[in-house]
Amino acid sequence: VVIAGPPGTLSAPVTEEGGILLERLAKHLQDIRGQADENDRDGVFPAGIFDRFRADGVMGATVPKELGGLGVARLSDVAIGLLTLAAADASTALALHVQLSRGLTLSYEWRHGAPRERAVAERLLRMMATGEAAVCGAVKDHRSVITTLKRDGAGNWLLSGRKTLVSMAPIATHFIVHAQVQDEGRQPRLAAPLLRRDAPGLTVMESWDGFGMRASGTVDVVFDDCPVTDADARIRAAVGARDDSVLAGQTVSSATMLGIYIGIAQAARDATVAAVAGRTGTQPAAVRTLITEMDVSLYAIRSVAGTALANADDLAEDLSGDMGERGRRMMQPFQYAKLLVNRLAPTVVDQCLTLTGGAGYSAGHLLSRLYRDVRAGGFMQPYGYIDGVDFLSAQALGLEQDNDYMSVRAARVTSNQSAADLSDHNGGAAR
Amino acid sequence: VVIAGPPGTLSAPVTEEGGILLERLAKHLQDIRGQADENDRDGVFPAGIFDRFRADGVMGATVPKELGGLGVARLSDVAIGLLTLAAADASTALALHVQLSRGLTLSYEWRHGAPRERAVAERLLRMMATGEAAVCGAVKDHRSVITTLKRDGAGNWLLSGRKTLVSMAPIATHFIVHAQVQDEGRQPRLAAPLLRRDAPGLTVMESWDGFGMRASGTVDVVFDDCPVTDADARIRAAVGARDDSVLAGQTVSSATMLGIYIGIAQAARDATVAAVAGRTGTQPAAVRTLITEMDVSLYAIRSVAGTALANADDLAEDLSGDMGERGRRMMQPFQYAKLLVNRLAPTVVDQCLTLTGGAGYSAGHLLSRLYRDVRAGGFMQPYGYIDGVDFLSAQALGLEQDNDYMSVRAARVTSNQSAADLSDHNGGAAR
Amino acid sequence: VVIAGPPGTLSAPVTEEGGILLERLAKHLQDIRGQADENDRDGVFPAGIFDRFRADGVMGATVPKELGGLGVARLSDVAIGLLTLAAADASTALALHVQLSRGLTLSYEWRHGAPRERAVAERLLRMMATGEAAVCGAVKDHRSVITTLKRDGAGNWLLSGRKTLVSMAPIATHFIVHAQVQDEGRQPRLAAPLLRRDAPGLTVMESWDGFGMRASGTVDVVFDDCPVTDADARIRAAVGARDDSVLAGQTVSSATMLGIYIGIAQAARDATVAAVAGRTGTQPAAVRTLITEMDVSLYAIRSVAGTALANADDLAEDLSGDMGERGRRMMQPFQYAKLLVNRLAPTVVDQCLTLTGGAGYSAGHLLSRLYRDVRAGGFMQPYGYIDGVDFLSAQALGLEQDNDYMSVRAARVTSNQSAADLSDHNGGAAR
Amino acid sequence: VVIAGPPGTLSAPVTEEGGILLERLAKHLQDIRGQADENDRDGVFPAGIFDRFRADGVMGATVPKELGGLGVARLSDVAIGLLTLAAADASTALALHVQLSRGLTLSYEWRHGAPRERAVAERLLRMMATGEAAVCGAVKDHRSVITTLKRDGAGNWLLSGRKTLVSMAPIATHFIVHAQVQDEGRQPRLAAPLLRRDAPGLTVMESWDGFGMRASGTVDVVFDDCPVTDADARIRAAVGARDDSVLAGQTVSSATMLGIYIGIAQAARDATVAAVAGRTGTQPAAVRTLITEMDVSLYAIRSVAGTALANADDLAEDLSGDMGERGRRMMQPFQYAKLLVNRLAPTVVDQCLTLTGGAGYSAGHLLSRLYRDVRAGGFMQPYGYIDGVDFLSAQALGLEQDNDYMSVRAARVTSNQSAADLSDHNGGAAR
Repeated sequence: VVIAGPPGTLSAPVTEEGGILLERLAKHLQDIRGQADENDRDGVFPAGIFDRFRADGVMGATVPKELGGLGVARLSDVAIGLLTLAAADASTALALHVQLSRGLTLSYEWRHGAPRERAVAERLLRMMATGEAAVCGAVKDHRSVITTLKRDGAGNWLLSGRKTLVSMAPIATHFIVHAQVQDEGRQPRLAAPLLRRDAPGLTVMESWDGFGMRASGTVDVVFDDCPVTDADARIRAAVGARDDSVLAGQTVSSATMLGIYIGIAQAARDATVAAVAGRTGTQPAAVRTLITEMDVSLYAIRSVAGTALANADDLAEDLSGDMGERGRRMMQPFQYAKLLVNRLAPTVVDQCLTLTGGAGYSAGHLLSRLYRDVRAGGFMQPYGYIDGVDFLSAQALGLEQDNDYMSVRAARVTSNQSAADLSDHNGGAAR
Repeated sequence: VVIAGPPGTLSAPVTEEGGILLERLAKHLQDIRGQADENDRDGVFPAGIFDRFRADGVMGATVPKELGGLGVARLSDVAIGLLTLAAADASTALALHVQLSRGLTLSYEWRHGAPRERAVAERLLRMMATGEAAVCGAVKDHRSVITTLKRDGAGNWLLSGRKTLVSMAPIATHFIVHAQVQDEGRQPRLAAPLLRRDAPGLTVMESWDGFGMRASGTVDVVFDDCPVTDADARIRAAVGARDDSVLAGQTVSSATMLGIYIGIAQAARDATVAAVAGRTGTQPAAVRTLITEMDVSLYAIRSVAGTALANADDLAEDLSGDMGERGRRMMQPFQYAKLLVNRLAPTVVDQCLTLTGGAGYSAGHLLSRLYRDVRAGGFMQPYGYIDGVDFLSAQALGLEQDNDYMSVRAARVTSNQSAADLSDHNGGAAR
Repeated sequence: VVIAGPPGTLSAPVTEEGGILLERLAKHLQDIRGQADENDRDGVFPAGIFDRFRADGVMGATVPKELGGLGVARLSDVAIGLLTLAAADASTALALHVQLSRGLTLSYEWRHGAPRERAVAERLLRMMATGEAAVCGAVKDHRSVITTLKRDGAGNWLLSGRKTLVSMAPIATHFIVHAQVQDEGRQPRLAAPLLRRDAPGLTVMESWDGFGMRASGTVDVVFDDCPVTDADARIRAAVGARDDSVLAGQTVSSATMLGIYIGIAQAARDATVAAVAGRTGTQPAAVRTLITEMDVSLYAIRSVAGTALANADDLAEDLSGDMGERGRRMMQPFQYAKLLVNRLAPTVVDQCLTLTGGAGYSAGHLLSRLYRDVRAGGFMQPYGYIDGVDFLSAQALGLEQDNDYMSVRAARVTSNQSAADLSDHNGGAAR
Repeated sequence: VVIAGPPGTLSAPVTEEGGILLERLAKHLQDIRGQADENDRDGVFPAGIFDRFRADGVMGATVPKELGGLGVARLSDVAIGLLTLAAADASTALALHVQLSRGLTLSYEWRHGAPRERAVAERLLRMMATGEAAVCGAVKDHRSVITTLKRDGAGNWLLSGRKTLVSMAPIATHFIVHAQVQDEGRQPRLAAPLLRRDAPGLTVMESWDGFGMRASGTVDVVFDDCPVTDADARIRAAVGARDDSVLAGQTVSSATMLGIYIGIAQAARDATVAAVAGRTGTQPAAVRTLITEMDVSLYAIRSVAGTALANADDLAEDLSGDMGERGRRMMQPFQYAKLLVNRLAPTVVDQCLTLTGGAGYSAGHLLSRLYRDVRAGGFMQPYGYIDGVDFLSAQALGLEQDNDYMSVRAARVTSNQSAADLSDHNGGAAR
């Protein structure tokens, strides 16, 4: 089932639950792979596959056992599952990531949150475990609007705005929407209100025409004075709070996506090397050099991601120290790994194209899909390359800055600045 | 009209004729740019644009003035034209390259060939000048067959086989087809027979579904015992002849394509930097670093290609020395430049995506097309990276090998070897 | 004491014994750092430091506790020690590596060898534990000669030849010398005879004038009919045996050296970032970008080396399966890591120079030493880049070849081929 | 004589005078090469070689013929000379560059300066032509002091301070010293006073102990109230003037140094490929790939530098337009080329080390010297990588900043900022 690899390289799950997730996924890999090209071409979300995931408990894989889930709690195990899945179809993996990362962050809220937060989390988690709930995150505002939560005057709230790049939306039952709270005379705050799909005023738009990840069910969602109860409003910190403790949740939300881009590169490599190995005659010099370079890169990104995820797993369980420090210590290695994966995974697929020759330069060739899909990694939250350089160099040089990309983005928009918008693909569920 | 650039970097034509070609192209750039995205999406060849090229004499740009053409004879001037065109639409440039490079190689045959060769060349060139003839090269065999020329028993020949990746085919009036001559008991020879599109047994197939360059009119062509006169059979050297003099013609055929990939990268850079420069606030560190790296890369590929093309232009006119040496001295700098362009032009477009952010990762965004188109460069004849390493390292180390990729490919096929098939896109007209 | 780093990145020892080794080293780091520049300039071996290592049990760190040593048995723990030491002085670390890796390989022989092999190993290990023995490996032949073991006609052997690049030699009490056995009419075999420094005919030459690692006590050793008892002759496999089981010992011998090159890069980075962070004014864009790139590279090599060493540690204890397969599975990740470390560690030091400016381009500047020392990594056994590409690409493509670099080198010499001689610095003790 | 290379790649002089310079240099190359290693080891300036240069007119090579010089006026021809010389010994080339670039900038002053400036220039140029004058530039302040020119109260000036990294100083007869003018109550101005070596208060210090370029005669020079006449004070623009016209002179001063670093890389490549080509047996895959990469890099830097120098030569003669624009148009391509040369020349030498193997890692090996020398390129004025990124990205993005590195450095010092000090090696003569 698992893509083979040496120990410590995201090749074998570290928990029994991780192994069970892999088994559940394994049953469907052949079918997933079989429909990947067609779904990619047509931009069609593989809803049938997700029906089967639901039936198999995969949609509740990261829900605690106590609440009926499979109880996969280690980021590295989730990443191995996504890696394996992405090697069959990255779009499917990206969409499943939305649900699995949400399970992880809600589990944290259920265990450590305030009572009201815990109640919301438990309700959702139980529904995710049964497959009743598929919960999308809606992070990035459409360029036209700032999604805003305002008081309805009766103790509850109204949400208006438009979100873009919301993955897994075709089957979503709930949306957690990142919004700004504009209270008169106060500093804007961040909020993450929960809405049901059938909320009044909520419209799921047509599918996005992406360059890659075209079967990930990525769309825009419009909110027009959607009512939100105060319990579901989930108000967070003020914009500009510079609270690095949020980096922990953002790491948990997004770090397992590293597995997806590694899985794409591994699939490209395996198909290519198999084809090249079958050629007769002496292998040309550049073939041997390129294959070596590819294998070094793959071992590197698997090891680095494995190490960063193990680090996050260790720290995720440790609430004993300074929470800001914990956040930075989770995010920093994740970002090291992300920069490397974002650089080397596309390079590997590119080298596969070189090794394959002109036959790979066809819309129907496997590498054509992988080449487009793998490029998505650079746009995943929390940081793309540009924001990643700002974050990591500030850490190294001891510079003060707001590291919460949700807050920074909100501040940018408020001050009417145009921005690079690098980390703007909602593949995951920002906590 | 011209994409601006410092001197010596393919920015200003060196001859008056090159300037006239640019002017003729300039009239159509806006329309070409305007339809590029749609043609790319639908895989439609811009036949209307080529009607206008025909009317303007562009289809005869490289035909000598004596034969009615514009008389553009310098490779660097042709490359500047293609660069400018590719910045508007690379597919259009790739298709036009087929005609322009054919004009250059036929001009050489007309000036220096044997009488029968001269006659064929003159006939074609005169028709190209008036726009009556659009001449495709058909270089790469379909995987299923070796395209073969055999005697018809009556002093003439019959051609059978199938060619793939033939660009500009939708409007082709003639095909020059690279074939093997199988004469009983003799070493196979290469030939480049000329066929009219309406030749009995010739079928132009449906359009290819490419990863990029989708509007270049690239298709398969099938030959089923097509009759070829002895004069049009154009028999060449034996397979395995190791005659490096052919490298001259192969350089002339393909080197101007460098302009296409530079033009793509330049277009990506210019659009991206304009957008980035319009952002308010302090430019992030990585933005400034990436823009610098991009501009260094662009200056590098423009200078290197300019230098390699000027070298080829100088040698093209010099028939005084050893013709094998001349071939190598033309091909070697071209290959240095090709490796660099094939590496850095895609890197520039990739960096543009990073600078643009998630908005660029959409099928409808300009960068999405450029990212796919620019990747074609690595597959262009005569050598991709793998064969390029073999050629260039053999030159440096003084190793003996057959440098004629047509011959090598024929030998590979004959010996039933599977091959990397790296340089297999018929963007140009192998002489 | 330890160079700080996130978990899983060679930052904290995994065993208590590893921690003790670190503590013992820590006492001397300041003095080691204090004399590093002077020793480097003059090419002087820090014999006094090794006296203190001897007194502290460091020279027996990898000797089993049962034989009086510290009992450090995990490669990763040894690498952490060497990393920490190399950050103070890489030459000292390289010399100590000779002794520590010998301890590891002799421990294996003591546990798993044939009786006679075990006896030799035990005798040496006990002497290493007390500091009585310092055991050099002499791997690489001087270009002028093949070091050869021949029968003396009385049941014992005579060794003649010359070895080069033997590190730690100034204080060596014993040499294990890689030699060929030339028995009449038989395929040459490999041997690793043990000689005492005072053996008749053995001469330790003047110190080598290296580009870097100048205080590592690296010299030539000449053997002129030195007598070797049959027990100490340690005859091994035939040249060309293609026995991949030897890759296990070669991994154990050399993999911990990765720590040395990481330590150099880390020291360069830490000194540079501290200096840069102290500058006033806004940090220039390229400074922030370069620092990010450096930190990504450092995290990468620390993680990748940590993963490869953990893999080797796991397999080192597992003798249950196919021993050739075990050898390959130890060597392959080691080589992935080695290629990456050999590439990125020098890059980091180079970027430090760029960040420091012209002040670093002075013979007396710390970076000048680190820049030279770090370049040694590419020459360390078993494979440099060229042989590494051959090995790793053969593994990927399923090509048959002899992976034992000792055997390959012997065969090259026998067949009178000149060779790239890439992996020819005896930093460690080839098993 | 000339290092062979394809046309357009700094391989053949474009003027007769350039050819004569090459011939004059050619007579001495063998001797220069013969003493290079020893001079490097001992840090000894090859004064005898410069005696011969003086006798041959080489010291006046860039002095106009009208004033008795050889009249080499094209930057590309000077660069070819330096390239050829650097392939024998880079230190010698760096020192000669000081004199040759001074000839170029003084020639400009002689032709286009104000009467007093012309008179000073003519006097110096005539002495350079006869070999009577060797004129150093002293650009970079020692960290301890700001070199300052102040009024002596009698209409003349006094210079005090300390300059570092002044090349060719052992034989200097004159120094042009970059200083600040501190006039009470006025914005500080820049000045470039001319001093004779025997000026009261001027002391040439001991030789610098460099990492490389150790025979370039690079030292500190101390000024203690040295008198300067008003005519020789050469007062320039105010600090912070943002006058881009100065970029022209700075380009002329420094751009020919590109030849030096290309010459080093070419020498390393030629020696290495010759050795590798002599090896028997099949060349390993990585050897062929590395050699190809090296040759692509060399062709790239030769072409790019050739193009940038030709651009500067064209603009140098054109005083018709906006002088600020002219300055930027000269500097920008130079900086593109400089970044590429600074990156690829060291990479080529590094790849040569990989190809050579451990034998190259010895203080006495040619590559050891080349590896150190080639790294100096990154520190040469006017911009290192960090300032280069600032300059080039500001050009691309239309950002306003002071591009005069002399002015920026002065302003930094004045505001007591610590700085990266990147472009601080006085290899050339900043105008």
